[in-house]
Amino acid sequence: MKFFCESTELADAVLKAAKALPVKKQMPILEGIKFRAEGDKLTVLASDLELSIQKVIKADIKIEGEAVISGRFIADFVKKLNNDTVEINVNDNKMTIAYEDNKVTLQCLNADEYPPILMFDEEKGLEIKGKELKDMIEKVIFCAATDDSRPIYKGCNIEAGDGTVTAVALNGVRLGYHKKEIELNGKSLNFIAPSRSLSEAAKLIDNPEDIVEIILQKNNVQFNLGGTKIISRLIDGKYIDYKKIVPSEYSVEVTADKKQLEEAIERATLILREEKSDIIKLEIKEKVIEITSKSELGNIKETVTAGIKGKDLIIAFNAKFLIDMLRNIDDEYIKLYFINSTSPCVIKPVEGDEYLYLILPMKIAA
Amino acid sequence: MKFFCESTELADAVLKAAKALPVKKQMPILEGIKFRAEGDKLTVLASDLELSIQKVIKADIKIEGEAVISGRFIADFVKKLNNDTVEINVNDNKMTIAYEDNKVTLQCLNADEYPPILMFDEEKGLEIKGKELKDMIEKVIFCAATDDSRPIYKGCNIEAGDGTVTAVALNGVRLGYHKKEIELNGKSLNFIAPSRSLSEAAKLIDNPEDIVEIILQKNNVQFNLGGTKIISRLIDGKYIDYKKIVPSEYSVEVTADKKQLEEAIERATLILREEKSDIIKLEIKEKVIEITSKSELGNIKETVTAGIKGKDLIIAFNAKFLIDMLRNIDDEYIKLYFINSTSPCVIKPVEGDEYLYLILPMKIAA
Repeated sequence: MKFFCESTELADAVLKAAKALPVKKQMPILEGIKFRAEGDKLTVLASDLELSIQKVIKADIKIEGEAVISGRFIADFVKKLNNDTVEINVNDNKMTIAYEDNKVTLQCLNADEYPPILMFDEEKGLEIKGKELKDMIEKVIFCAATDDSRPIYKGCNIEAGDGTVTAVALNGVRLGYHKKEIELNGKSLNFIAPSRSLSEAAKLIDNPEDIVEIILQKNNVQFNLGGTKIISRLIDGKYIDYKKIVPSEYSVEVTADKKQLEEAIERATLILREEKSDIIKLEIKEKVIEITSKSELGNIKETVTAGIKGKDLIIAFNAKFLIDMLRNIDDEYIKLYFINSTSPCVIKPVEGDEYLYLILPMKIAA
Repeated sequence: MKFFCESTELADAVLKAAKALPVKKQMPILEGIKFRAEGDKLTVLASDLELSIQKVIKADIKIEGEAVISGRFIADFVKKLNNDTVEINVNDNKMTIAYEDNKVTLQCLNADEYPPILMFDEEKGLEIKGKELKDMIEKVIFCAATDDSRPIYKGCNIEAGDGTVTAVALNGVRLGYHKKEIELNGKSLNFIAPSRSLSEAAKLIDNPEDIVEIILQKNNVQFNLGGTKIISRLIDGKYIDYKKIVPSEYSVEVTADKKQLEEAIERATLILREEKSDIIKLEIKEKVIEITSKSELGNIKETVTAGIKGKDLIIAFNAKFLIDMLRNIDDEYIKLYFINSTSPCVIKPVEGDEYLYLILPMKIAA
């Protein structure tokens, strides 16, 4: 293998692919990034078998071929290159990268050991504006589980069709839902992908105006973003019927200033810094939400004025989960709905139904 | 104790004092920040007994008194306050902070246990522009030891008099020296302070145009920066005669582009990412410095063109130490001086003698 390419393009491709390098220990070959030189294109690929990312760039190819080299090294290395042409040569299982008057020689991994990664090339998929997809994913993904509890809790459900796209993520304690009215190119789809894969896909949308193409095939979903392809295994099974989890009737409706509420809860958690749990208590009464927290250090009482409809209520939450939700809301005012101190709280916009967050309360110590 | 003050001023004072909170476990009372309300002033103080920082702000004091409360909590808390007046009240060993419609109640520590911290109030000291002091400290302090090897290695020597100020820090392997011609107010001084104390003092110089007053007394040095006073214990003993360490004659003189050299060394270290030592080899020969490094991953050869006077030389260094020095040099070109592969390398400006760095070489594996 021998080719010349621009260092900035090489850096961009390597750094994008590197996002799919395994986070946990995997087969040693997957620690590598794979280069394939063919025609006038260089393909740069990394994978942890669940998530694979590939970017194709232009290259002046003298000898076609394939090589795999240490992913972490090459990712660090390309960041430090100056803007210039680099020459890459593979011989005797050694890769030489020549740049300016300098040269690095690397031991290659065995390219034959690299597992085949299937990418869809021709298929025409559903098209969606990068900005919309990125926004939806980022605003629900934090509700997915990060531990190994139930596989379905680690996923995010995306459903598109009839001019509507919805994204949902949930675990046993909280749920995030977003909906957008978007012009779609007549296609529809419905899949559950691991939250890590979607999160990396969202991060790779550099230009929010770009169109992302989504292709579903067998157990995989592929996102095409210009020259970058992201493919992820899907999570098997039927998604949880989240509509059944969301109560349809409430006994208390609160309208609050989002920023005031968020800041008050943030301050209330400070006293819990040395505690194991982040439990705060909300007391909803005439015209105010009183937020209290206590620990060995002392106690905090925050008062947020609010519009209240319904009876008084005392309810407790994990403050961290509540803050996560509030941080992901851009509205100035929000509505909070309650039933009683043991039923979920639901957060929605004052108008419309673009988003919905649900959080289970915690037991209040007697 | 009872007083009113502005939350922004309180936050500034608490966050400045908090820099002196103990880094390692100490007497429990020192985990607290001490408030003293007296006359129309609130004094906020923290100390780890070696370093103490105190800031005085205006306050509307209703009842004078003293209180000590958890430093880490109050530092986090004041960051989250909105711009407003706060009311602080101490009663029954409980501090209440009221802000807007909110209230935090904190368990106080026992103020009587707080050790007496001496600050000099009246003394007139040496005056130096904040910018100059900050710059000198930051450019040598990284050469001091951070481990517990020899106490003197953990210090930095500052000497001022006759219109010249010098700062020196060194450990067994490297030395940093800076000198500035500065108009002084007729005073002179010479002291060795712990590098942590000087580093915190440098960071607290917000406004580089401000004048810093330095006062020496017994075993302490005090820096006055407006309403902030920083006092540090000195390190006993005579400083190392660093002039004796710096060779007076050299056999090789190299003139190099600082940025090119720094970038080349940075790239060369990348291949060492999984190695324990950061050893790189410099080969100085006709018109170039060749920098090489190798590990199991492969090897890198970087070539930097340079002006060379003297014989060829091969010498090895800890790359990290060399990079630290280069990063702290603002000049476009520098001079490097060598004797042989076992003697120290000295880095100086092309003209003048504003700074000098010295680094010991490493043994080259046969």
